[in-house]
Amino acid sequence: MRIALAQTNSILANFKFNKEKILEFTQRAKEKKAELVVFPEANLFGYHPFDLLERESLVSAQEKILKELAKEIPKDIYVLVGAFEKNESRKGRPYYNAAFLLQKGKCLKVFRKELLPTGDVFDEARFIEKGQVKNNYFKIKNKKFLLTICEDIWAWEDKKGKSIYAENPLKKMKKEKVDLIINMSASPFFSGKLKQREYVVSQTAKHFKAPMVYVNMVGAQDEIIYDGQSFLVDAKGKVQFSCRSFEEDLNVFDLNSLEDWNADKGTLKENETEQLRKALVLGLKDFVQKTGMSKVHLGLSGGIDSAVVACLAVDAFGPQNVRLFALPTEFNVSESFELASKLAKNLRIDLQTISIQPIYEKIREVLDKAFEVRQFQLMHENIQSRIRGMTMMAYSNLHGSMLLTTGNKSEYATGYATLYGDMCGGLAVIGDLTKKQVYDLAKLYNKEYELIPLRIIDRPPTAELRPNQKDQDSLPEYDKLDQAVVRLVEERKEAKNETEKWLLGVLDRTEFKRWQAPPILKISEHSFGRGRRYPIAHKASSKS
Amino acid sequence: MRIALAQTNSILANFKFNKEKILEFTQRAKEKKAELVVFPEANLFGYHPFDLLERESLVSAQEKILKELAKEIPKDIYVLVGAFEKNESRKGRPYYNAAFLLQKGKCLKVFRKELLPTGDVFDEARFIEKGQVKNNYFKIKNKKFLLTICEDIWAWEDKKGKSIYAENPLKKMKKEKVDLIINMSASPFFSGKLKQREYVVSQTAKHFKAPMVYVNMVGAQDEIIYDGQSFLVDAKGKVQFSCRSFEEDLNVFDLNSLEDWNADKGTLKENETEQLRKALVLGLKDFVQKTGMSKVHLGLSGGIDSAVVACLAVDAFGPQNVRLFALPTEFNVSESFELASKLAKNLRIDLQTISIQPIYEKIREVLDKAFEVRQFQLMHENIQSRIRGMTMMAYSNLHGSMLLTTGNKSEYATGYATLYGDMCGGLAVIGDLTKKQVYDLAKLYNKEYELIPLRIIDRPPTAELRPNQKDQDSLPEYDKLDQAVVRLVEERKEAKNETEKWLLGVLDRTEFKRWQAPPILKISEHSFGRGRRYPIAHKASSKS
Repeated sequence: MRIALAQTNSILANFKFNKEKILEFTQRAKEKKAELVVFPEANLFGYHPFDLLERESLVSAQEKILKELAKEIPKDIYVLVGAFEKNESRKGRPYYNAAFLLQKGKCLKVFRKELLPTGDVFDEARFIEKGQVKNNYFKIKNKKFLLTICEDIWAWEDKKGKSIYAENPLKKMKKEKVDLIINMSASPFFSGKLKQREYVVSQTAKHFKAPMVYVNMVGAQDEIIYDGQSFLVDAKGKVQFSCRSFEEDLNVFDLNSLEDWNADKGTLKENETEQLRKALVLGLKDFVQKTGMSKVHLGLSGGIDSAVVACLAVDAFGPQNVRLFALPTEFNVSESFELASKLAKNLRIDLQTISIQPIYEKIREVLDKAFEVRQFQLMHENIQSRIRGMTMMAYSNLHGSMLLTTGNKSEYATGYATLYGDMCGGLAVIGDLTKKQVYDLAKLYNKEYELIPLRIIDRPPTAELRPNQKDQDSLPEYDKLDQAVVRLVEERKEAKNETEKWLLGVLDRTEFKRWQAPPILKISEHSFGRGRRYPIAHKASSKS
Repeated sequence: MRIALAQTNSILANFKFNKEKILEFTQRAKEKKAELVVFPEANLFGYHPFDLLERESLVSAQEKILKELAKEIPKDIYVLVGAFEKNESRKGRPYYNAAFLLQKGKCLKVFRKELLPTGDVFDEARFIEKGQVKNNYFKIKNKKFLLTICEDIWAWEDKKGKSIYAENPLKKMKKEKVDLIINMSASPFFSGKLKQREYVVSQTAKHFKAPMVYVNMVGAQDEIIYDGQSFLVDAKGKVQFSCRSFEEDLNVFDLNSLEDWNADKGTLKENETEQLRKALVLGLKDFVQKTGMSKVHLGLSGGIDSAVVACLAVDAFGPQNVRLFALPTEFNVSESFELASKLAKNLRIDLQTISIQPIYEKIREVLDKAFEVRQFQLMHENIQSRIRGMTMMAYSNLHGSMLLTTGNKSEYATGYATLYGDMCGGLAVIGDLTKKQVYDLAKLYNKEYELIPLRIIDRPPTAELRPNQKDQDSLPEYDKLDQAVVRLVEERKEAKNETEKWLLGVLDRTEFKRWQAPPILKISEHSFGRGRRYPIAHKASSKS
């Protein structure tokens, strides 16, 4: 029996698009002689729905399309799609996160997810009622399957014997002999996630002594990037083959031999920085395009952050859809402009220069007088940054282009960014990257030739908002800061050393800025953005 | 036996402050001859903790203070405090939301919450493991009690037989005869909430055929306002007495007679607008003060929204802590300025005027040339708004004063607000009020004399960003718009009429602005802000 892993990119709540995608992949699976095709979790609705599930009419519309889909799928193939199912009882949350086994003209069985993730970006306990995995066995042509949905396989204890679930539904249920376990997932990317997935899939396969297939969503939804990388393990939990990363893919394997039916064996193992680049390009592309836009722009300062964002933007949309601006004041040294020009030229984009100095001077003149300010101070730094934000937003107004935000995670952690200034924009592309990761990406872009002028990489970072300013006048050295950010924010560890204790207080005091940040593409286990929900008014940092 | 309802205002994660508060109220309860004093849910930690619970060291610090508290409470009184308890098992979420029964020097019993709210602003499934209400019986001096924590009593079916919980733990458990049921809550305010509380409390009292006391938190935490209004019902579910709204209170009653032991019988029933005013003043005061600030400022346009925010600010902080600014361009008519001046005078505050016209002209000169713009357009409207935002943020930089944001819910729903312009600020004070509610508040402030010049209330609303602009050029009439906003956003109903269908699309297209909005004081069942989690990139509005 041949089974297809259909790793697809859905558009949230675009049911017709998602249906056509399912039909297209089902047809392709059939051409590859598959008898069963498995799609990712919730792929008909799209995922993460957040509070769109407030709107019952949306789920009704999705159910209608599901019925149409069942009619339109070809003969002689079984199709497993993910969708939300209404809870028809008057008790409990309004929906199940479900999978539907379709055959031409009918739905043979519905499967419901049992474990509902609520950590980080997940909110499934809001609208989803628990199902029971033990009901999820099914048979096709004398082969027996067990279907699980995403989180259902994540209750295995870690190496310390810990689990965030009080009970593991897979351990509780009666173990039956199965030919294949299936997991349909919408599992977000972060570095190291693949290992975690391989661990829980192989634990499950070994527990049931059966091979297991893991089908993951690909594509991005707001801050969340799904990497695909669907895979198959044998009954001993050993990976047999994987689908591609960060793009749609279709693989067919034979259940008897577990051998991949495709000529193309998928991509080789990539290094972390290459994965990061692919993740960000996909995240950027999908966010802009799924909001119905096609063009982006940003200010190019001559520094590393905007340089890398410009490269990612060109990578995602091509130079014809990216506009770059230099917005100097008296504090920007000529070298910055020259480096920005050189990079723009390398990217084949004209760099438009707009001196904001006259605006800055006029504002100083008016506000210094009004507020009786006699000396240059923080206010004047913020004003420059805010003039840039205003200028770039004016360009958005004129051309329907999305302003990209260029701050990195280490800056955001310390509040070293001006709210309504350089924090302006539709998407914070590298807002979950440490400074080191930004440098790593720059080096990756320079792998074949000097795309980014080396001096951009080598010179000390500066905001150029006052004379001779350097980031390190206000911040710890970036290698120490990066480590502290990773430990406190990403790994949620306790503050140990001086830098971490300092950062803890700073994090709390600057939360008000991040509350108002644009969406941040998530590439770590725990990023700023909707998955990290901190209060503003409290006295926590004096305690720990 | 006499029992005290201690309705207190905690500061999140300020354990020492919260402990002193508990000791003070316990002492006062003792002076009123109480033998048991009951505090609100999680009052030692403060609530809503959001992701502060990531930091285990915080819960450790709270546990340490809890031990100190047990030692320091006076003799001859039992104390029920709310706090987080570590889950010492390696399975499940890391904490329980618990209550601790203390007696001088010891903890007699720990009670754990069973039902974990996850709707709107709540996120309890993130860090909290379920307890079991059935374990929560206890005895003091031959009287038997059942303790419940907040959501534990919210699984009763509504009049349509519906409940968001699949099972009601109170119905499942063995019913024992009790003398009193206790509920410790941190229940946010909205209009109509009191009725809902009275319903679930009286259902519970009737089920167990016992009187019941409901002790609610008071005070505000970021967007969330707790109103207090703790109360007691008899075994038939009839309300016996209530504590005050929006302020701390202590009431003692006798379990034998259920009679209030206090001379002061609490406040009379207030009308909705008066409750709204109290809610917003408390929300504003607590947010500013709990973040360690004391001064606020805003631009006064001569329109209704900023007028009402100015009144609320003076109500909360006194005129000496409020600064007001007029920031005109060529598009602001002189009447607007005169009305703003008159209001400022009535509020006993100087109105500082800063003409931003020279700044606006300079920016137009530079940007129109750079972007080859020949006609006045949206970009120029936004620029004026953003100059105001920048100016007001400069004042924040200089004086550590918090800029208050003046947009209302109907504007935010339609995106009729400039991101990084009039949306700038630390707190959106009236961001959950319909335009009608803003007018109601204005009339309330004018109840005794014309505090707000009547013309501010009577003239047609305008943003004054281009000549002769009126809100109604771009928006439906406010009464229709308000209704549509209440139905779609607050009540989460489906769009029926033309205005609602139009608004549904607009809501989806403008989500990117609200994603970056400041915290919004929540006074309705469902407000914009952290309790409403909408995605940006999707195709939902074409469906419903």
